[in-house]
Amino acid sequence: MTEPWVGRPIPQIDMTDKLRGATRYIADLSLPRMLHGAIVRSPVAHGRIRHVDVSRALRVPGVRAVITGADVRAPAFGPYVPDWEVLAQDKVRFVGDDVAAVAATTPEAAREAADLVEVEIEELPAVFDAVEALEPGAPLIWEQRLGNIATTFEIARNDVERGFGRADHVFEADFSTSRIYHGYLEPIATLAEYHDNGAYTLHVPTHIPLRARLVYARGLGVDTSRIRLIVPPIGGSFGAKYEMTVPLVAAALSRAAGAPVRLAFDREEDAAVNHPRPPFVFHHRVGVRDDGTFVARTTDVVGTAGARTFWSPTVLATAVHRVDSLYDFGAMAGTGRLVYTNESPTTCMRGFGNAESLFGIEQVIDEISDRLGIDPVELRRHNAVREGQTTMHGWKISSSRLPECLDRAQKLSGYSERRRRTDWSAPRGDTRRGMGLAIAHHVSGYSAIHADFDGSSAIMRLGLDGSITVFVGEPDLGQGHRTVLAQLAADRLGVEPADVDVRGVDSALSPDSVGTLASRGTTMAGMAVLAAADDARDKLAAFQAQRWGAGVEWSGGCVVSADGARDATLREALKAYGDANCGLPLLAQGVHRPPTVKPDADKYGNPSAAYPFAVHVAEVEVDTATGQARVTRYWAVHDSGTIINPSTARGQVVGAVAQGIGWAFLEDVDLRDGVMRNANFLDYRIPGAGDMPPEMTVEFVAGHEPNGPMGAKSLGEVAINPVTAAIANAVYDAVGVRCAALPMTPERLWAAMHDDVRPAPITEVTR
Amino acid sequence: MTEPWVGRPIPQIDMTDKLRGATRYIADLSLPRMLHGAIVRSPVAHGRIRHVDVSRALRVPGVRAVITGADVRAPAFGPYVPDWEVLAQDKVRFVGDDVAAVAATTPEAAREAADLVEVEIEELPAVFDAVEALEPGAPLIWEQRLGNIATTFEIARNDVERGFGRADHVFEADFSTSRIYHGYLEPIATLAEYHDNGAYTLHVPTHIPLRARLVYARGLGVDTSRIRLIVPPIGGSFGAKYEMTVPLVAAALSRAAGAPVRLAFDREEDAAVNHPRPPFVFHHRVGVRDDGTFVARTTDVVGTAGARTFWSPTVLATAVHRVDSLYDFGAMAGTGRLVYTNESPTTCMRGFGNAESLFGIEQVIDEISDRLGIDPVELRRHNAVREGQTTMHGWKISSSRLPECLDRAQKLSGYSERRRRTDWSAPRGDTRRGMGLAIAHHVSGYSAIHADFDGSSAIMRLGLDGSITVFVGEPDLGQGHRTVLAQLAADRLGVEPADVDVRGVDSALSPDSVGTLASRGTTMAGMAVLAAADDARDKLAAFQAQRWGAGVEWSGGCVVSADGARDATLREALKAYGDANCGLPLLAQGVHRPPTVKPDADKYGNPSAAYPFAVHVAEVEVDTATGQARVTRYWAVHDSGTIINPSTARGQVVGAVAQGIGWAFLEDVDLRDGVMRNANFLDYRIPGAGDMPPEMTVEFVAGHEPNGPMGAKSLGEVAINPVTAAIANAVYDAVGVRCAALPMTPERLWAAMHDDVRPAPITEVTR
Repeated sequence: MTEPWVGRPIPQIDMTDKLRGATRYIADLSLPRMLHGAIVRSPVAHGRIRHVDVSRALRVPGVRAVITGADVRAPAFGPYVPDWEVLAQDKVRFVGDDVAAVAATTPEAAREAADLVEVEIEELPAVFDAVEALEPGAPLIWEQRLGNIATTFEIARNDVERGFGRADHVFEADFSTSRIYHGYLEPIATLAEYHDNGAYTLHVPTHIPLRARLVYARGLGVDTSRIRLIVPPIGGSFGAKYEMTVPLVAAALSRAAGAPVRLAFDREEDAAVNHPRPPFVFHHRVGVRDDGTFVARTTDVVGTAGARTFWSPTVLATAVHRVDSLYDFGAMAGTGRLVYTNESPTTCMRGFGNAESLFGIEQVIDEISDRLGIDPVELRRHNAVREGQTTMHGWKISSSRLPECLDRAQKLSGYSERRRRTDWSAPRGDTRRGMGLAIAHHVSGYSAIHADFDGSSAIMRLGLDGSITVFVGEPDLGQGHRTVLAQLAADRLGVEPADVDVRGVDSALSPDSVGTLASRGTTMAGMAVLAAADDARDKLAAFQAQRWGAGVEWSGGCVVSADGARDATLREALKAYGDANCGLPLLAQGVHRPPTVKPDADKYGNPSAAYPFAVHVAEVEVDTATGQARVTRYWAVHDSGTIINPSTARGQVVGAVAQGIGWAFLEDVDLRDGVMRNANFLDYRIPGAGDMPPEMTVEFVAGHEPNGPMGAKSLGEVAINPVTAAIANAVYDAVGVRCAALPMTPERLWAAMHDDVRPAPITEVTR
Repeated sequence: MTEPWVGRPIPQIDMTDKLRGATRYIADLSLPRMLHGAIVRSPVAHGRIRHVDVSRALRVPGVRAVITGADVRAPAFGPYVPDWEVLAQDKVRFVGDDVAAVAATTPEAAREAADLVEVEIEELPAVFDAVEALEPGAPLIWEQRLGNIATTFEIARNDVERGFGRADHVFEADFSTSRIYHGYLEPIATLAEYHDNGAYTLHVPTHIPLRARLVYARGLGVDTSRIRLIVPPIGGSFGAKYEMTVPLVAAALSRAAGAPVRLAFDREEDAAVNHPRPPFVFHHRVGVRDDGTFVARTTDVVGTAGARTFWSPTVLATAVHRVDSLYDFGAMAGTGRLVYTNESPTTCMRGFGNAESLFGIEQVIDEISDRLGIDPVELRRHNAVREGQTTMHGWKISSSRLPECLDRAQKLSGYSERRRRTDWSAPRGDTRRGMGLAIAHHVSGYSAIHADFDGSSAIMRLGLDGSITVFVGEPDLGQGHRTVLAQLAADRLGVEPADVDVRGVDSALSPDSVGTLASRGTTMAGMAVLAAADDARDKLAAFQAQRWGAGVEWSGGCVVSADGARDATLREALKAYGDANCGLPLLAQGVHRPPTVKPDADKYGNPSAAYPFAVHVAEVEVDTATGQARVTRYWAVHDSGTIINPSTARGQVVGAVAQGIGWAFLEDVDLRDGVMRNANFLDYRIPGAGDMPPEMTVEFVAGHEPNGPMGAKSLGEVAINPVTAAIANAVYDAVGVRCAALPMTPERLWAAMHDDVRPAPITEVTR
C-alpha cells in the first residue's frame, strides 16, 4: 500500500485548467443560435407600473424577443416566502427590480433595446432602513401583508429570566453588521434553453440544484422533471449564487425567442442588483456569574430582507441561535425579524449569520473578561461547549478540539503575554499595536435546509477501461471538494486522485442533493463517496469470487483469492466484469445518512453531523493620526478533524481571513436611497495582497470526527466566523475603542478615538 | 393498462428537433478557441514522399498548427490490418491520402494554408483494379507484404465435390457489384480536443464507440481510458462512419495547436476520400438436382480494399458465406480475397456483403427456375432454411415466417400470374414491363465483431422527480432506435415514450457496447433496456415492500401492497426512494446475453440471435429504345417478428428500397486512375422522389422472435438485401437481359439488348 492520498497537499485537480483558461464557465459556452439577454431595471425604489412600451426596443436590429411582467405571470413562489416574480408584475420594489427583458443576437443590441424600453412608473414613498420599515406608517412594500416583516424567528430554552436572576452581572450590547458584496471573480451568468416539448435546460451556477429546480419549476409553471439543471464550473459564489431569479428571466426569454439565451452581468450590474449579505442589528444581553460562568442570554436581531426574500430567513435564524452550540449560556431567548426595505434583496454569505453574531458576542466576551478580570482565553474555555456535550438546543458535539486550539493559538501567537499593554490615553498621532482573539464554530451541514432528506448520495461508475467517474449532487464552487472527493475515493480504491473524475453536477446525471451549503460538501459528499467506493469494492469482490469460485479479499489494490493463487488488479477485474456483463460498467452507489434529525417544533434536535472549531488571533496596528488600521500578523488554529488536503484547507483559511479583513475594514455596499454608489471594484474595494498580514500562521490540530469522512469535518465557513471579532478585539486592545459597527473605517475609528465620550456599545446593566 | 406503445406508429422522439434544425450535429458545436482543420491530400495515386514544406502554410494569418507524418508516428494499427497511419508516413497510396493537416482560426485560412503546403512526391506505378493487382508484377502497395492481398477468407462445409457429384445440373455465373457512395446527408465531421493531462475528448459519429476507442487509443499512443468518445447525433452513415481516421487527424491537430479542432468535410471531399462500398467480383457455382434441390455451391469473391483496410474484411466474409443461412445448399466451399489497390479505402455499407452476394445468387436461382421449369417461388420455398433449423455453419434459425412472406408477396403483387415471360425478340422501341422477385435474410447482430463479448447492456436512471433516463452503448444513426427503445421502456414501466430520455452515447456515461452494426441495435439494446426496466421494477418493488413491511406487486403502473390497502404510482415510489436514499436516483441495469457463440476455428457456430427475412417483388418498365429502366411498382413483405414501431419500420424499408434503386440504376463511384470524377450530388445521382415507384406496398407478416425484444428482430439491412436482385430479375422478365454488373445503366441495358449474342452471365456447365 502506497502512502495515502488523504492528508497530502496535492493541487486541486482542476487547477491547471483554471490557470490555463481552459475551464468553461458560462461565459465560455456557446450554443447554436444563442441569443444574449439584457434586463430592463426599475430606476425608482418603489412604484406602481403604469405602462411598459416595448415598441422602440422591438425595432432594434437583432432583437428577437422583449418580455414584460405580463408574459411571465405565475402564482407567487420563492424559496421561503412567495414574493418572487420573474419580472415585476404591478409594482417595482427596489432600484434595479426586473421590469422587462430583451433577447438579441448580440449583447450590445440587447442592451440598446433594453435602454429603449419605456417604463412609466407612479412613484411611491420608499423605505431604506429595516428599523424604520418596522415603524407604524412606514411604506408598505407588499400590500397583501400586514406589515413589512418578511419572516420572524423565535426560540427560547430553559428559563431565561431565572438565568438572569442567577447572574452577578448582566451586560447589554448593540452591534450592527454591514451589507457586503460577495465579490466573487465571475459575475453572475446563466444560460437557458427552452425546448419545444416544454422542457428547459438551465445552466445555473447554483449551490443547491434540487431546491433551485423546485423553485424554478414553480416559477416557470412546469413539472420539476422538465427542468434539467446543469451546474457549470463556478467562479466563486460565497452564497450569492444559491438561487437567483436571473435563470427564470433567461428561461422566459428563451421560450419567447425560441432560442437559447445567455444572460451575463457585467461587474456593475452584478454588484448593484445581486443579493448582498443582509445587514443585521443585534441587541445582546448576557448574564454572567462572578466566576465567569454564563447563565443566560437574550438576543434580538433585526435583519434586512430587501424587497424580496431569498435566503436571509435562515441566515437570520442562525444569527439568533447558533452561538448556543459554541458556548453554554445556560438559558436563552432569541427573536429575529427579517424586514422588507426598498432595496436589492439580500441573501446568505459565508458565515451565514454566525459570523455576524460572533462579531458582537466575541466582543462582549472580551469585554466581560476585562470587566471581571478573567483571562479571556480561560473565560472562553470555561464556557465553551465540550466534546460529547448535547447543547441546549439538542446539538451533539461529537468532537471538539477547541481546548487544544486555544492552547496552540496562545502558544503560537504569545497572545496572553503580548496583549494589552498600551494606555488608552488620547491619540497622539502614534501607531499602536494590539492583539485580539476570537473563537468560532460552525456546522457541517444543516438538516433543516431541505424538507425531504438530509445526507448525501454518490454514484460511482467504473468502466471496463479502468476509468472511475464519481457523481455527487454537491457542486464544487471553486473551494476544491472535487479534489478532496478524488483523494478519498483514490485511497479506498488504490488508485491516484487523477484517475478519479469527479463530475460537475447535472440534474440528469447526478444524484439529487441538499447541496453545497452549510459547509457540508466534504463531510456529506465525502461520506457518500466512501460508501460508493466500498460498494464498488464489494461488488467487484463478489464478481471475482463467483468468477473464480473462491473466497476473495482486497489486498494492496488487488482482489486476491483466498488461497492466494489468483489475483486481479482493479483494472483487470473491471475489464473482466465489463466483458462478462456485455459492456456494463460497474455501477456502485453510496448513501450517507448522517446522525442528524430535523429540529422539532421547538427547534430542538441535532441538525449537523459535526461541528468544527477555530481560534483566531489578530495583531493590528492602528495609526491614531488617521484611524487607519491594518492587520500585521495573524494566527488561525483550527479543529476540522482530519485534514484531507492541507493545501486546499489552508487556502480556505487564508481566503476566509482575507474576506474577513475586507469585511472588517474595507467593504460596505454604499446604498443611498436604494442606489448602490460603489458598484465596481475601484470604489468597492476588496482586500488585495497589500491588505493581508505580512505574516500569517495556519495550523490544524489533530482530531478525528466520528461522523466525517476519514475523520474530517467542515472548514469553509468556520474560518471566516471569528475574523471580524478577533480584529475588533485587537483594535480595542490597541486603542481602547469598541467597534459596534462594521466596517471599521478610518473615519469611524478616528471619530471614536476622538470622541470625548468613548462609545460604549457594551454596558453593564444596573441591577 | 393503456394500449401498449409497442406496435404504435409514433413519430421518432427526436424528429421535431431534427425538423426544426434544433438537433446539434458536429457542425453545430462550438468550443472556446475552437480551430478549424483542413487536410493536405496526395495528388497522386502512388508515390514516395520526398519532402513536405510547411513554411508557406505557417505564414497564413490564423494558422495555429501544421502537422505532417513526422508529427504522428505511431506503431502500425487499424481495426483489422495494421495499415492505418494518422498521416501518410513514407508513401502515399491513393489520390486523397492524408499527407499533412492544418489548424487555423477559420475554415478558409485552414484551406488556404493547406493548399500552400508543398509536397514533393516521387511517383510510383499504380494499380486501380483488384484483379490486376493480383497479377504478378503488379505494383506492390504495401512493400512489407508479399503481395497485394489485404485479407483472405476461406470456408468449406460438408463434401462439396460429393455434392456436385449428386447434382443433375451445375450452373456457373459471374457477377460484379459496384463501388457506392453512402450518400448520407451529413458529411463527415469530427471535433477533437486534447487535454493537458494527455487525454482526448473526441466527438465522432461512429457506430462502434468501443472498438473505435480501442483503435484510436493505439493510433494516438494513449491508454483507452484517456479517450472520451462522444457520439453526436448522426445525419446518416449506412456504414461509412463506423471508424474513420479523420478523428485521429483532428486529435493530432488539437494536441499540436493546444485548442479544440473541428474537421468537417464538404460534400466533394466527403465523396472523394471517404470509404465507399467495396466492389466485388463473384464467381458462383451451384449444383442442383432435377427436382430443384440445391446440393452444392462454391463461391470465389474478389473484393477491393483500396489502399488501406477498414471494414471490408468482414464484408468480404459475409459475401462469401452468409447466404448459407438463407438457403440450404447441402455443401459449400468459398474463398474470398480482399485486395489492395491505389484507391480510396472501402468499408462496409448497409447490406454488408450479403446484399452484394444476393444480387448474383438470386439471379442464379431465377435462372435455375427458368431452366428447370420450376416456379421461382416454389424453388425458393423448397430450398430456403426453415424455422428451427440449424444451418450448415451452425446458425440457428429461431424464427422464420419466410413462407408466409412468400405467400403474401405473391398475393399482393400477383407475381406468379403477372410475370411475362413474353417473347424477348429484338427491341422495337417499345416499352416492356417485367416482374422480378427476390428473397433475403440478414442477421440481428454478429458475435464475431467484438472479441470480448456479444450482447448489450443498459443503464436506467430513475430520478426522484420521476424522470427516466436510459443509457445504452449503441448509437442511433438516425434510424430511430432511440424511439423504439423508449417504446419498449415505456410499456414496461407504464409511462409514455416521451417520458423516457434515451441518451446519446458518451463513453464516460454509457455502457460500452459492440455497437450499432449488423442490424443489432433494436434486438440487442432492446433486450438490455427491457432487462433494465425489469430491474427497476424489481428494485422499486423491493423498496416499497420494505417501506410498507408488506408484500407488493406491480399493477396498472403502480406498486400495490398485497392487501391492496396501499399503492404508489411509479413517480410516488421514485420520490420515496430518492428521499429515503438521500437523493440517490434508482439505478437499474440490464444485461442481455444473447444465445450466440463466437464461431469456432472452422467458422462454425451461431453468431446471431435472430434472422429476419424479406420477400421483395419489383415491377419495372424498360424503354427498349433507350435502355432506360424504372421501377413502377414495388412490394416488400417482411418477417421482422414483432414490429415495435410500424412507422419507423416502414421508413427503414422505403429508405432501403430507395437506396437499392439507386444502386441498381443510378449510383457508381466513377474512379478513373484513382480520381473520383463524380464527387458531388449532381454527377453522383442518388434517387429522388421521381425515381421511386409511384406505388409501393410494405407489409410485415405477424411473427414472434423468441430472442428479440417483445418478439422483434432486425430490419435495417435485410430491407436492402433483395432490392437489386428483384429489380434485375424484373429487368430480365421484361427484356430477357441478365445483368451481370451494377449499376444497370441505360447504356449497359441498351447494349445488352442490342448485342447479337446476349450476354450469358449464368451458364450451365457441361458435365
